[in-house]
Amino acid sequence: MAVDGSHPYFPRDVVVPGYAANTAPLLFILTSFGGIIGALLFGCVTFATWYSTALKRGEQLTIAWFSLCGFLHLFFEGYFVLNHATIPSSQSLFAQLWKEYALSDSRYMTSDPFMLCIETLTVLIWGPLSFATAVLAARNRPREQGARHLLQAVVCVGHLYGVALYYGTCGFAEHMRGLSYSRPEPVYYWGYYVGMNAPWVVVPCVLLWQGGNAIQAAFREVAEGVEGKKGL
Amino acid sequence: MAVDGSHPYFPRDVVVPGYAANTAPLLFILTSFGGIIGALLFGCVTFATWYSTALKRGEQLTIAWFSLCGFLHLFFEGYFVLNHATIPSSQSLFAQLWKEYALSDSRYMTSDPFMLCIETLTVLIWGPLSFATAVLAARNRPREQGARHLLQAVVCVGHLYGVALYYGTCGFAEHMRGLSYSRPEPVYYWGYYVGMNAPWVVVPCVLLWQGGNAIQAAFREVAEGVEGKKGL
Repeated sequence: MAVDGSHPYFPRDVVVPGYAANTAPLLFILTSFGGIIGALLFGCVTFATWYSTALKRGEQLTIAWFSLCGFLHLFFEGYFVLNHATIPSSQSLFAQLWKEYALSDSRYMTSDPFMLCIETLTVLIWGPLSFATAVLAARNRPREQGARHLLQAVVCVGHLYGVALYYGTCGFAEHMRGLSYSRPEPVYYWGYYVGMNAPWVVVPCVLLWQGGNAIQAAFREVAEGVEGKKGL
Repeated sequence: MAVDGSHPYFPRDVVVPGYAANTAPLLFILTSFGGIIGALLFGCVTFATWYSTALKRGEQLTIAWFSLCGFLHLFFEGYFVLNHATIPSSQSLFAQLWKEYALSDSRYMTSDPFMLCIETLTVLIWGPLSFATAVLAARNRPREQGARHLLQAVVCVGHLYGVALYYGTCGFAEHMRGLSYSRPEPVYYWGYYVGMNAPWVVVPCVLLWQGGNAIQAAFREVAEGVEGKKGL
């Protein structure tokens, strides 16, 4: 990593108070994080499949997705919201992960008001709602399917709008102000910034489509029931 | 209006290129805008009631709301997105309205990347979806109620998240950076900034609650139908 000043972040003149380079090897922090996430998802899906034995593969994946979102929103992004000012100088696992990710978006190192705002809303709103959606999907009760599909749609819209604003604010900052928050190396821009957020474009689209179809099917069934009773 | 420099906006050192004070009286631009909106809503609701004679009062109000949102998003906010750079010097009706509103939020005068980003998404996504929701509500067809309630929920979440970010970014900018984008007079902060955006907190909450209940009721009816067939 070329460090031509006190920190490796872009734009080069951005101020990152108290920055201290990560002490743990990159492979260690990434595999630690991957391990925590893998164990969590395995635990959630195993528990859900034990609780509702009839869960289909698609439902298991949905539960894994919303558990992942709930964990990242509440704990990883919650850590950022609570510690944003001290992360640059900290060496905890989450702080080192944030310092690594911020190579692709330095706003996480500068207490940027937009990032703090959207992350606070993510922690307070999308975190609990993601877990609630996972729980309703795991319970798999016919009478709760309305609440479940409503919540699923709500969280998916939140994710899509959030990621659109996340990419969009960067795009407009670059277009309007000539500011780039990412280091220029492809691994940071395409790997971290684009690649790590792309799932929150693709998966919510799929789940919104799927949940939307379920909602429309339910209303059609009700309409057909009413038409049937009328003898239409 | 105390103008101690070249423009009346806050913070006082913000740069507003080419600012020219409004030439039309405030009462004139406000009543013109109110007249356009009043005529549009009257037209939309009258047409919808003529098309679907059985529309209840609540549905008429819902149609009026989404027509209002569609108009504001596509045309008023669309005007901002297309002309943000020249609004400070323009004297068109919409430009004068934006210059007046910006007394409560100068980001509309400075091509602020966050405002451009969220307004562009509002124009492209929430404008068309608001009109689509109004059309589906006006058609009032039983088999389209699924799509209608899904769209209604989607747009309401978009509005709630949007207004939370709109207020939130201002709040964090003030808290983190000591920046205030509004003039200090209560009419601007409480009247324009808080008051004119508050409907996008209150109404989407009501409509999301209402639409959410309709979705849950439809799934319950389907579940009861299945239970009935099983003889439970």
